[in-house]
Amino acid sequence: MASLKETPGAGTSRIVISVDAMGGDRGPATVVAGIWYSARKNPELDFILHGPQDELEKLVSRRKGLSDRCTIRDAQGVVTMNDKPSQVMRHGKGTSMWSALESVREGEATVAVSCGNTGALMALSMIRLRRLPGVNRPAIAILWPSRNPQGFNVMLDVGADIKADAQDLLQYALMGAAYARNGLALERPRVGLLNVGTEEHKGRAELKEAHDLIASREVAGKYQFVGFVEGGDIPGDTCDVIVTDGFTGNVALKTGEGTAKLIGDLLREAFAYSPLSRIASLLALTSLSRLKKRIDPRRVNGGVFLGLNGTVVKSHGSADATGVSAAVKLAFELARSGFGDRLAARVASAAEGAQDGAAQKDLNQP
Amino acid sequence: MASLKETPGAGTSRIVISVDAMGGDRGPATVVAGIWYSARKNPELDFILHGPQDELEKLVSRRKGLSDRCTIRDAQGVVTMNDKPSQVMRHGKGTSMWSALESVREGEATVAVSCGNTGALMALSMIRLRRLPGVNRPAIAILWPSRNPQGFNVMLDVGADIKADAQDLLQYALMGAAYARNGLALERPRVGLLNVGTEEHKGRAELKEAHDLIASREVAGKYQFVGFVEGGDIPGDTCDVIVTDGFTGNVALKTGEGTAKLIGDLLREAFAYSPLSRIASLLALTSLSRLKKRIDPRRVNGGVFLGLNGTVVKSHGSADATGVSAAVKLAFELARSGFGDRLAARVASAAEGAQDGAAQKDLNQP
Repeated sequence: MASLKETPGAGTSRIVISVDAMGGDRGPATVVAGIWYSARKNPELDFILHGPQDELEKLVSRRKGLSDRCTIRDAQGVVTMNDKPSQVMRHGKGTSMWSALESVREGEATVAVSCGNTGALMALSMIRLRRLPGVNRPAIAILWPSRNPQGFNVMLDVGADIKADAQDLLQYALMGAAYARNGLALERPRVGLLNVGTEEHKGRAELKEAHDLIASREVAGKYQFVGFVEGGDIPGDTCDVIVTDGFTGNVALKTGEGTAKLIGDLLREAFAYSPLSRIASLLALTSLSRLKKRIDPRRVNGGVFLGLNGTVVKSHGSADATGVSAAVKLAFELARSGFGDRLAARVASAAEGAQDGAAQKDLNQP
Repeated sequence: MASLKETPGAGTSRIVISVDAMGGDRGPATVVAGIWYSARKNPELDFILHGPQDELEKLVSRRKGLSDRCTIRDAQGVVTMNDKPSQVMRHGKGTSMWSALESVREGEATVAVSCGNTGALMALSMIRLRRLPGVNRPAIAILWPSRNPQGFNVMLDVGADIKADAQDLLQYALMGAAYARNGLALERPRVGLLNVGTEEHKGRAELKEAHDLIASREVAGKYQFVGFVEGGDIPGDTCDVIVTDGFTGNVALKTGEGTAKLIGDLLREAFAYSPLSRIASLLALTSLSRLKKRIDPRRVNGGVFLGLNGTVVKSHGSADATGVSAAVKLAFELARSGFGDRLAARVASAAEGAQDGAAQKDLNQP
């Protein structure tokens, strides 16, 4: 990272991403293949790779040009998908996941990427990176294919915590809007609060309170609040950021993914049904691959942990090399935009404002 | 209904469905077209149709053979999509919705069908039909396209109420299992409880309590409990009945629908992209229409209100004639299977059992 600081804004600035090579379902070879794809596409990208030194050295040396851009940090321990977060918090030192976060903590890298156990990664991130001042519950944000011009919406929280009070939901709105500004290049993102109806009288008590809080911070948060939205708006075009608690968000995410996958499988079956339909599928190949690319979950692979001192991108555990590369690309874009610092500034200023809410609210009204 | 009671079990038994002709987005002509489709397919089906007499008589007389099988009940009032449930409860008398429920209340019809305002329909159903003994919160159950052999899973509650405690979730498990037995012909449906992970230690406190309650009633409820399931299992094959609170269920339902619709639209766009892809789409027409039929939301049109003295099928407000016909078909199948009586018996026996839970649990263990 030294070089980045020495040559700010120069074309030769290096962006360093810290990558946990272990813990994904497909092992380190897939992770190394993924970062190699990204390295070839982005010349200013370097890596710190964490895992068993011997194994990683072998894998990296097989990929042309990767050795020069990749520092390996030896870490023999691996956090598995079955490890409980509480155990990992106590005994996780020495694992590749711990080591990957350490590089962000020490300022060697701006963003960490891991395919590992989500719960453990969040728990370790909380204790090693710590929460941003003013943030009570960090959140996991994802991008969801949508009808909006940018092609995706941001949804958070999708599972960092199972509950959220009105203050937390306000933080999610601020963090989600910051993410949409930097990740989707939207100057003033439209924020919606997920509910079972769009009428203001509907829903749980904490949602009504959050509704008013988020509305009152519109100007300070540099977003437009569209009020309550419904599940159908997550892939829709009524807003760019969908705010919800981690329980609801997680169920919605997995339901949407599962439904999309079912349709994809049925589509394949339909085309394999008869000789004629197989011919049709050949002719339709470009159309279908265009569609596939548009909604391919690997293209938007990466939940982002928001609200910490440092950004962490969680890739799907089952990600293949394309998926890992997508997660790295996201990490790269967030690092390049200076997202982490901007988010911290935004949350801090909003937290100050919240301390005398009413006065601040008046000041912020246009 | 007289004829049904006079000739029980005979091939000429009539099934009478009460239908609210008003309140849907497309007006009564669509509803009449829908019931006409159903009438032609099912010779033992009769209707009581509720709405403005003159208008309905005209519409019915245009459909060959429908007049003989359709009694019209004059009701001049209409519940609109914007009416608040509380207003409808006070002033709803004289509306076609009220009248449609009255036919079930009076025993003239077994099941009521309406395309109208869901909240108002549930509120009126609660006060006119009343809850079954032992049921605290009625639920809305829907069928969701899935990988299971039966092609669909049952999910409830998808929006009757915004919360549910452990006892409510147990009732949902019992009612959902009864629905799956009668609606999907599954002798011993597999029930799953929706959560953000399948590990038993995860999730909210009421979910852990519900987990143990539902497990303890497996034998009495004639279902197999598979434990916690995730959003991805809603379209999956790990269980047949997904139990959740109405807030989460409603968000999941609308997210899944929205995602499926987005994919469908993108698929159409993909095929309209170039001359070659348009030719491909012609060749692929049968494959695509097979797929479309499999996941067509109109084919599974109809949320079922469970836990009342009488069954109510809520059709989509935007349903076309095919959609209305699907809702009527569902109502017909539930009426024919004697679903309402069986559900009542099941819930009553479970409620008795719950009064001395531990003893009952021992008795029920094989």
